[in-house]
Amino acid sequence: MSRSDRKDPASLHNPYFNLKPGQKDIWTLINETAAKAQADDPNTKIVNLGQGFFSYNPPEFAIQAVDEALHQTQFNQYAPARGNINLLKQIANHYSKSYGREVPIEEVQITTGANEGMFSVFFGFLTPGDEVIVFEPFFDQYIPNIEMTGAKVKYVKIRYPEKLNTETVNGEDWEIDWESLESSISDKVKMVVINTPHNPIGKIFNKQELHRLGELVIKHNLILVSDEVYENLFYTSEFPRPATLESLPELRERTLTVGSAGKSFAATGWRVGYIQGPASLIKYVTAAHTRICFSTPAPLQQAVAQAFPQADKLNYFENTRKDYARKYELFVKVFDDLGLPYTIADGGYFLLVNLSKVKMPNDYEFPEDILSRGTLDFKLAYWLIKEIGVVGIPPTEFVIEKNRVGNGLENCIRFAVCKDDTILEEAVKKLAMLKDYL
Amino acid sequence: MSRSDRKDPASLHNPYFNLKPGQKDIWTLINETAAKAQADDPNTKIVNLGQGFFSYNPPEFAIQAVDEALHQTQFNQYAPARGNINLLKQIANHYSKSYGREVPIEEVQITTGANEGMFSVFFGFLTPGDEVIVFEPFFDQYIPNIEMTGAKVKYVKIRYPEKLNTETVNGEDWEIDWESLESSISDKVKMVVINTPHNPIGKIFNKQELHRLGELVIKHNLILVSDEVYENLFYTSEFPRPATLESLPELRERTLTVGSAGKSFAATGWRVGYIQGPASLIKYVTAAHTRICFSTPAPLQQAVAQAFPQADKLNYFENTRKDYARKYELFVKVFDDLGLPYTIADGGYFLLVNLSKVKMPNDYEFPEDILSRGTLDFKLAYWLIKEIGVVGIPPTEFVIEKNRVGNGLENCIRFAVCKDDTILEEAVKKLAMLKDYL
Repeated sequence: MSRSDRKDPASLHNPYFNLKPGQKDIWTLINETAAKAQADDPNTKIVNLGQGFFSYNPPEFAIQAVDEALHQTQFNQYAPARGNINLLKQIANHYSKSYGREVPIEEVQITTGANEGMFSVFFGFLTPGDEVIVFEPFFDQYIPNIEMTGAKVKYVKIRYPEKLNTETVNGEDWEIDWESLESSISDKVKMVVINTPHNPIGKIFNKQELHRLGELVIKHNLILVSDEVYENLFYTSEFPRPATLESLPELRERTLTVGSAGKSFAATGWRVGYIQGPASLIKYVTAAHTRICFSTPAPLQQAVAQAFPQADKLNYFENTRKDYARKYELFVKVFDDLGLPYTIADGGYFLLVNLSKVKMPNDYEFPEDILSRGTLDFKLAYWLIKEIGVVGIPPTEFVIEKNRVGNGLENCIRFAVCKDDTILEEAVKKLAMLKDYL
Repeated sequence: MSRSDRKDPASLHNPYFNLKPGQKDIWTLINETAAKAQADDPNTKIVNLGQGFFSYNPPEFAIQAVDEALHQTQFNQYAPARGNINLLKQIANHYSKSYGREVPIEEVQITTGANEGMFSVFFGFLTPGDEVIVFEPFFDQYIPNIEMTGAKVKYVKIRYPEKLNTETVNGEDWEIDWESLESSISDKVKMVVINTPHNPIGKIFNKQELHRLGELVIKHNLILVSDEVYENLFYTSEFPRPATLESLPELRERTLTVGSAGKSFAATGWRVGYIQGPASLIKYVTAAHTRICFSTPAPLQQAVAQAFPQADKLNYFENTRKDYARKYELFVKVFDDLGLPYTIADGGYFLLVNLSKVKMPNDYEFPEDILSRGTLDFKLAYWLIKEIGVVGIPPTEFVIEKNRVGNGLENCIRFAVCKDDTILEEAVKKLAMLKDYL
């Protein structure tokens, strides 16, 4: 059939975006389910611990900084493609302190959120036929961001703890499948992506794990992409980073670290992210970013540049970390009381809770768009919204189809704790009702 | 050579970004040249009419609207991937009035600037092996935005007016090479991109041109991408748009129209753009945008949503258009006086001036990064900055290499008039000095 025989311009679409009629991404599905449940029962307040956005505002010093930026002409016009020079200096300074060495601005690229930042990293290096190793569970956006370059994802499991269904576990109980990792490294592999603190597990990779991974990355001349958007939220005694690994200092020469002002300043809607790495690699990230977004919103960049020194002065990151340790304590108590096991979060703002002990009524009816997902966690998420009034995310969306059942993850729900205390308290009250279903 | 023999991770870069050492894009080259000239001669103020950013601030009602948005929690967090619902409604309303028919919000996608919007359009439809017709001169970002999908650009000339070197011409004197267009349409071609008002020519395509182009687009089942970011700046009696062509109403079923809040509200740094088109096509733009940027900055979206009704109330677009007609009048007078021909702009905020009558000193010395470009317009731009103190852009950057000389374009400079009157007046005073070189 030649093109002119097909009269529908929609037939010209990129087959990668093979949208099935009515198909919804997980965020839309869960949010719409919650909105409908709320509309059906206006007297019950549904508590949303689903998507990882903050229920509260960025700190006032950050908001004031936007206001100031807006009144200076240059910050309403195109920022340089590399980034606002003040922000480049602040990010370099932030990493200098955190890494314990002088990080020059040539090692930083500002991006339009960490998402576009990672897309720029992938586009700067990957071409069709290349391969990238991604650990599963994975943050869902990684996959299309890699595949859109024409490269292929090779999945390596973070092995689920054996006691996932029965006992509360630690981040360290989730272990990289080293054998599978080594056998996955072909000559086509260019990159390995890690996420630490990890979404949805909450695991922080320890120094031994980073060292073993780093040795493989160096041996095979790969690039390590370290998604550290939750860098300022760790509850362990320290946060090991590939770019500062003392036992393997040369790893930093091939590490691209991803950061997010949205995550750091409770402003996920600002879309200001950054990539740090060797200047010889950053320049390809710059080249890709320049073509993808040209530049990142100027007033928000300037505001973040102003916010960093304020954050230091007010001990903002340290205080937020303590505050989140407290939020976790407040929230996990209900699961301890119920005897529902979870993974103790090393960092980030998610909690992965195993609900295999929860018995939903046998004859409970689920709508087709939940049933069609085929895994228990989607049913659990639906039932929690409708009967308990709490929104969480089914985590099997973060693994590939063949690994969705049989390992305990399908019994889990991911809750986000980046919410006001009153919201968490309300959620705790509602979740306590689960005792009637154990 | 196997991967592990190559020890340099930079060797893994995407060969598309084949950066030559010291190579600068045109914006960096010209801006750095201007900054250096200013530093060398601090007593002379260099007037920048180069890049198309505004020298003044967005209207106060738009800035206030950001401030209001920042104090509402939801506008600091992720906006929906499709766009802030208030903005979707305002853009739909804007197009409804402009098109004279009801445009539903399903026909709109909000993007992170028009640049990322076009990239999303290309990614939503193009795959390796596809082809896209682009008219030259072209806005430089189109090319990588298309090529990064793996598709190929087929260039069709807008034929230069014969009298380009000798007489002031109209937009209509720049004509599509129809023969070349028809012969370029193969079965691989999926899209045609036009830019109206055109950068750098200032031409607005008339109804006859759009009709003839539209017939080809329909006949061959193509999609027409109409980059109309200067839609609110036209100086002709009307602004014909492919999506509203009365003689060919079915063209709108395959037209994707590109708009820009940054251009419309003097805020190029805000990065809020939009795509309008049939819902059956928009959904693929949405799919691509969701993966590229996930969502567009939330407070700025909400601000633009608030700014549109204010703009209507204050007759802002109409007043701006009148103001720009006046700015052009103020600016072109110096070229009329000098007898230097230009293209009368139908729309946009650029003026393309032919400087072939200007005689630079024979022994004038140019630096290597200017000489290496090989065309006269780069020398002219350099000399104008250094000796006259006015920054303009060499337009041969907007055509492919083999078409850069021999047609008069290499004698031209593009000036941006989106500047305060005092800046334009200063430029006029400086440019009057050209009479000594005629």
